[in-house]
Amino acid sequence: MEQKEMKILDCTLRDGGLVNRFYFTDEFVRSLYETNIRAGIDYMEFGYKASEKLFNPGEFGKWKFCREDDIRSIVGSNPSSMKISVMADVGRTDYKQDIIDKKDSVIDMVRIATYSDTIGEAVRMTEYCSEKGYETTVNIMAVSNNTDRELLDILKILSASPADAVYLVDSYGSFYPEQIRRLADMYLDAGKDAGTRVGIHAHNNQQLAFANTIESMARGVSLLDVTVNGMGRGAGNCSTEQLLGYLKSTGADNLRKYDELPIIDFIEQQMLPLKRSGVVWGYDIPYLLTGQEKKHPSVAIEFIDAKRTEYSGLFRELMGA
Amino acid sequence: MEQKEMKILDCTLRDGGLVNRFYFTDEFVRSLYETNIRAGIDYMEFGYKASEKLFNPGEFGKWKFCREDDIRSIVGSNPSSMKISVMADVGRTDYKQDIIDKKDSVIDMVRIATYSDTIGEAVRMTEYCSEKGYETTVNIMAVSNNTDRELLDILKILSASPADAVYLVDSYGSFYPEQIRRLADMYLDAGKDAGTRVGIHAHNNQQLAFANTIESMARGVSLLDVTVNGMGRGAGNCSTEQLLGYLKSTGADNLRKYDELPIIDFIEQQMLPLKRSGVVWGYDIPYLLTGQEKKHPSVAIEFIDAKRTEYSGLFRELMGA
Repeated sequence: MEQKEMKILDCTLRDGGLVNRFYFTDEFVRSLYETNIRAGIDYMEFGYKASEKLFNPGEFGKWKFCREDDIRSIVGSNPSSMKISVMADVGRTDYKQDIIDKKDSVIDMVRIATYSDTIGEAVRMTEYCSEKGYETTVNIMAVSNNTDRELLDILKILSASPADAVYLVDSYGSFYPEQIRRLADMYLDAGKDAGTRVGIHAHNNQQLAFANTIESMARGVSLLDVTVNGMGRGAGNCSTEQLLGYLKSTGADNLRKYDELPIIDFIEQQMLPLKRSGVVWGYDIPYLLTGQEKKHPSVAIEFIDAKRTEYSGLFRELMGA
Repeated sequence: MEQKEMKILDCTLRDGGLVNRFYFTDEFVRSLYETNIRAGIDYMEFGYKASEKLFNPGEFGKWKFCREDDIRSIVGSNPSSMKISVMADVGRTDYKQDIIDKKDSVIDMVRIATYSDTIGEAVRMTEYCSEKGYETTVNIMAVSNNTDRELLDILKILSASPADAVYLVDSYGSFYPEQIRRLADMYLDAGKDAGTRVGIHAHNNQQLAFANTIESMARGVSLLDVTVNGMGRGAGNCSTEQLLGYLKSTGADNLRKYDELPIIDFIEQQMLPLKRSGVVWGYDIPYLLTGQEKKHPSVAIEFIDAKRTEYSGLFRELMGA
């Protein structure tokens, strides 16, 4: 279907952790780990490697920090073929202290999240993690406000770095399929000579996360981020159950290893109770409006948290009308 | 952007009426009419022209029947430039009695809904309505289970009919964007010589209603069905507010007449109270599963109405596993 074999990465704990401050029970995390293995998921992201100096561990669940021992308490030495990833934000991680030699770690991949103005530091982190023995990706956030010229410069820098993949990230859920196809081609072209894989991380503000994911896949994007039930900040992400249904519909031999049923079962057993406990995410009008305006969803998150419903007031505020 | 000027058709009362048995208050309908005019919507569908012999008027709100007087009680003689449509189902309408001469009616367009095996009767209805002076469309339902050969035969018959437009209808919310683009091309090609317009009516089972609508539009599909807040049977439809945001983002001069704000205001004023009163529609796991399996949503609707949540059992049942 494309030049690189497609891989699916589950980031339910990481992007979903932004909704509940990473307070997942061990039972939830263990069940998700086992579910992902049964579903054929290729990578599971456990959370962030955040600095314990910058963020008070008393105010967040442990998956904000992904200490080696905490991951091992769930997966042991991870005897499965599913790989484990963590995310590290430029400027918010003590990576030289917290990211140890790969041979001593159960983690397989470090994903480095950066804005376009801190690419230099992202490259240094990539070099560091790569030397330690990890697979690495660089996830450039908030590109909906970058020009093509800026993006091309960044992609050139990253193709010369050791990053195994560069991610097309639709942080604000602003892109339409036609834009995603164009950007996917741009990212793929930039990484072609160096053999850099391209990934996609979509947000569902306009109910386009799934469509954008499969449209970019058809262009050759081969690392696909999903979360169970779309759990993620604000409007959430492309949901695992959507993508697995699509992959099955293709009838492709190399995709037969994926199985939607364990995911559906996990939603019933774990996601419904989590939602009933008051954890809220998913498509809603305020997220649509921030997505349409290419704005960070924080305004919409606060609006919804406060149970406000003056949508037309929010519309006028966002549009500057 | 395409050969035919694009038009937007609001079918909130018609598809949404399937959710609440057409029991909308006059205030709701009047407000929607005024909202659609302010938003620049081109057609507003008031409901069905259903047979009062087959359906007991005591069991449905009046928009199941769309009597001339009931429409006029809302719109007067409709002094606006927005046109009015109604839908008539093959086999469920007394059209020869209930569809009067256009010169005596405030209705502008009759949309004829048919399954692929009753195309002959759909053509007869089209001929009848066209002779009476109406614009007509034929909406072929449930085509996800038709072969290309069957579809081409049907499209050929319809291109020889007086129908002004033929609709690509994704009744089960089963189609992916790549399939919608291919089908759109097939419908457009079949109607090209006769000048038949092509419309799209999408369902949101897989959260693809919006994506499929704008993808088909880019191919030349020019009658776009929407509902406010996506209100419609089961998972609902492409929502007006999504489409209007997209049209604005194109910056196209001929699309400047559309305005999202009145729609957002209507959601706040009318849709939120309707939802709070217990009327339920929109994306949910059971609808995803029927969409993935190309099945009618009725099983999912019953499942959700009964507040059932054994998703994995439903999955096994639908997949025959």
